[in-house]
Amino acid sequence: MNFKLTIQYDGTDFHGWQIQDGLRTVQGELTRALSLIDGRDVVVHGSGRTDAGVHAEGQVASVEVQRDITPEKLVTAVNGNVGKDIRVMAATVVADDFHARYSALEKTYVYRVINGGVMSPFWLRYAHQDARPLDLELMQEGAAMFLGEHDWTAFSAAQSDAENRVRTITGFQVSEHCNERSRSRMIELKVSADGFLRYMVRSLAGTLLAVGRGEMDLDMVMRALGNGDRTIVGATAPAKGLTLMKVSY
Amino acid sequence: MNFKLTIQYDGTDFHGWQIQDGLRTVQGELTRALSLIDGRDVVVHGSGRTDAGVHAEGQVASVEVQRDITPEKLVTAVNGNVGKDIRVMAATVVADDFHARYSALEKTYVYRVINGGVMSPFWLRYAHQDARPLDLELMQEGAAMFLGEHDWTAFSAAQSDAENRVRTITGFQVSEHCNERSRSRMIELKVSADGFLRYMVRSLAGTLLAVGRGEMDLDMVMRALGNGDRTIVGATAPAKGLTLMKVSY
Repeated sequence: MNFKLTIQYDGTDFHGWQIQDGLRTVQGELTRALSLIDGRDVVVHGSGRTDAGVHAEGQVASVEVQRDITPEKLVTAVNGNVGKDIRVMAATVVADDFHARYSALEKTYVYRVINGGVMSPFWLRYAHQDARPLDLELMQEGAAMFLGEHDWTAFSAAQSDAENRVRTITGFQVSEHCNERSRSRMIELKVSADGFLRYMVRSLAGTLLAVGRGEMDLDMVMRALGNGDRTIVGATAPAKGLTLMKVSY
Repeated sequence: MNFKLTIQYDGTDFHGWQIQDGLRTVQGELTRALSLIDGRDVVVHGSGRTDAGVHAEGQVASVEVQRDITPEKLVTAVNGNVGKDIRVMAATVVADDFHARYSALEKTYVYRVINGGVMSPFWLRYAHQDARPLDLELMQEGAAMFLGEHDWTAFSAAQSDAENRVRTITGFQVSEHCNERSRSRMIELKVSADGFLRYMVRSLAGTLLAVGRGEMDLDMVMRALGNGDRTIVGATAPAKGLTLMKVSY
């Protein structure tokens, strides 16, 4: 049977999603647990890789399991065999041709920023801190410029193996969150697209933070979008602020 | 000068607030850092002890510092000399007779419960999990019975050194929180009083959870309140679900 798994992980102690020899990765832990459960080597497909330190509140994976097992028992069995920083939140039986990566229609990420002078211990692992004043309206204007279909060469890793760097951003909200726990202003950058290139969300976030600080103007952003020049975009924002929220099918 | 410090800490890796030889404690770390800054042994007074594993979003401490230093610089200096799981969020200069413990008028704690089958990695350190169905209305009725002035002997540690076990609970709300991050129902028990005995909040939380599960009826709660019998109250709920939210002066 083909299963769709919805997964959360705290990325802090992982070398990212993708399985790598000798390193603790999310795909590696899930593959080990599921192979143990199924009594053979299984292949776990993720909706996409997340980099080291990036979190997921709603990653999706698919896996074919030959053993006869209910979704509920599969959840319990996997969670009993992986670290507590990974949890399968739900499992459902899906059609044989469902593939977590190829069937994905849209993904949503959130980039969280604590905009204050002191970093709350409760957000230390999950948000990036920028103590400088951030102009939210300018950031919102910048985010609106990113909407639609563009070539994202300027906003992705140079070593990205994607041949086609055109993606469509379907939503981009920059909003202030009232978060009593942080005792600081928290800004969330929420972006949805039909797909993302490597480092793309963190590059967009870094660029919007530079815009918010007044270090980069919107014309420069437009120019980078137009000519694909990586040297004029903002620095890639740190991994820990990034969380994969949702994958739609 | 006498300073009032507002402090957050993730209690997971501390042996509680109170300074103890050879153990990592919040008071111990703050005392070390502040003594270093002031060039002499200082005494850091907390509003009260929190037990091992209990968190604080708004603990308050007071400390007399002889060195001439602004509150802003004191915040930076302390935070530079303690672990990132403790943060001084704010410092203010207060009157010489201000004392974090003796001047406190009211304290508020929150006890957080994930009421679902899978524990989100993002709440693992900060909430207790109870997968069984919980009747919120019954828990609210139980909480209402705790309001007012009572002798809390049945709901405190036997070895508690307090002679007078009468305290006044000024507010007790049991509410459901919409928390997208947990992907489960989250229940918060928020209680305020003029003071708490040792283990009191966790004992009240454990009792209300037993009520919510239908294992204990409200008459039994009333009886325990009346006769101080510790054997009939619910089990003390685990430390990690508890957070000191606020101390009022």
